[in-house]
Amino acid sequence: MPLAADPGRIVGILGGMGPAATADFYAKLVRATPARTDQEHLRTLIWSDPTIPDRTGALLHGGVDPTPLLLAGALLLRAGGAAVIAVPCNTAHAFIPRIAGEVGIPFVHMIEETVLGIRARHPHARRIGLLSTTGTQASLLYDEALRRHGFVPLAPTPETQEARVMAGITRVKAGIVDAQTRALIAGAADELVDAGAELVIAGCTELPIALEGAQLRAPVVDPTQALAEAVVRVIQREP
Amino acid sequence: MPLAADPGRIVGILGGMGPAATADFYAKLVRATPARTDQEHLRTLIWSDPTIPDRTGALLHGGVDPTPLLLAGALLLRAGGAAVIAVPCNTAHAFIPRIAGEVGIPFVHMIEETVLGIRARHPHARRIGLLSTTGTQASLLYDEALRRHGFVPLAPTPETQEARVMAGITRVKAGIVDAQTRALIAGAADELVDAGAELVIAGCTELPIALEGAQLRAPVVDPTQALAEAVVRVIQREP
Repeated sequence: MPLAADPGRIVGILGGMGPAATADFYAKLVRATPARTDQEHLRTLIWSDPTIPDRTGALLHGGVDPTPLLLAGALLLRAGGAAVIAVPCNTAHAFIPRIAGEVGIPFVHMIEETVLGIRARHPHARRIGLLSTTGTQASLLYDEALRRHGFVPLAPTPETQEARVMAGITRVKAGIVDAQTRALIAGAADELVDAGAELVIAGCTELPIALEGAQLRAPVVDPTQALAEAVVRVIQREP
Repeated sequence: MPLAADPGRIVGILGGMGPAATADFYAKLVRATPARTDQEHLRTLIWSDPTIPDRTGALLHGGVDPTPLLLAGALLLRAGGAAVIAVPCNTAHAFIPRIAGEVGIPFVHMIEETVLGIRARHPHARRIGLLSTTGTQASLLYDEALRRHGFVPLAPTPETQEARVMAGITRVKAGIVDAQTRALIAGAADELVDAGAELVIAGCTELPIALEGAQLRAPVVDPTQALAEAVVRVIQREP
């Protein structure tokens, strides 16, 4: 049992934003790990803190700053032995630069990994639709990464952003994952396709949950899956 | 935001046995929690250590004792602030008495909660089929709890136990959750129903994953769900 002697480095997950998205991410990480037995899987420490203040509220509406609780969570993961940290919340990535120096262990960057994955798998795509929280939109995290790789980002209209995207995300956070939730998000995705999007990024970790089983007219890119695959690659590299 | 001022006690999950079962349990815990926003959910610390030696191997075949790593994991959760610990692995419950004293914070007992749930929801049932690892069978954990509550446990034949139940569990642990896996477990459940079982306990945390979407001839009791509901009840009580 080589893994019992060398159990490998520990994955840290800073989650709870929302908690269902953290469960979804951990399930995707387990499925992305090449393993035939329990003992070949990755040791993982997950701090799921749903009390972290709403990221969009802080970015746009003067809400409570989530930075202190994000920092505390990351330090808890480090104290528990984590070698890298994954944050399965797109909007929270706006706050990572504020804590990365003090945390001192690397973050696997969901947004960068998502855009790298699009470049690798869809090299000829140009116009990329983005469904995300209004906070992620305002942070320009995806816009900046997409443009840097030669893509053109497309966002929903302000009406669709509030009435469909944010409404659907709020429903998933309330545990309501049903046909109506799926229709809200799928409709927003269809509007982006109508506007010329060749792909649509489900750029809030609640969105892949909402879209499970949906049939859309363009490929949907799942950043939660991209993050899971990146964590497996990063953690299996030599320290 | 009352929860930001009083974020409540922290749930500890000692998992990784297997990791997919831990993801399934955490998803069920999130769904069992009455919450309309992220911030109303429970803070949860999950230590998922798939390198914990196989519990059935230790109980039956002289394999490496998992007790030291179970203890280390529980102490890590306590150090991280957990107020209670849930262990989403039935077989691991055979080892909890060996560590509970040193851990010093309460475990929510999956097997006891499952049997209490059966008594509450199926008060007139008598013969209860048990699908579980051979280690759980040998530990008599369910047998003892069922008999104490007036039920009669029924186990698969030794052939079915190996060729269907353990084979199916091993497939889920290898990430193979398909129609063949489901058929293996569903067939074992049907044999128990033929032998007189009025209910069947999916008494290994891999089994509810294998049986998702299966149509069986008797109600299936999911201990992962029972544990999730019990954790919500316990954590919301006053300390």
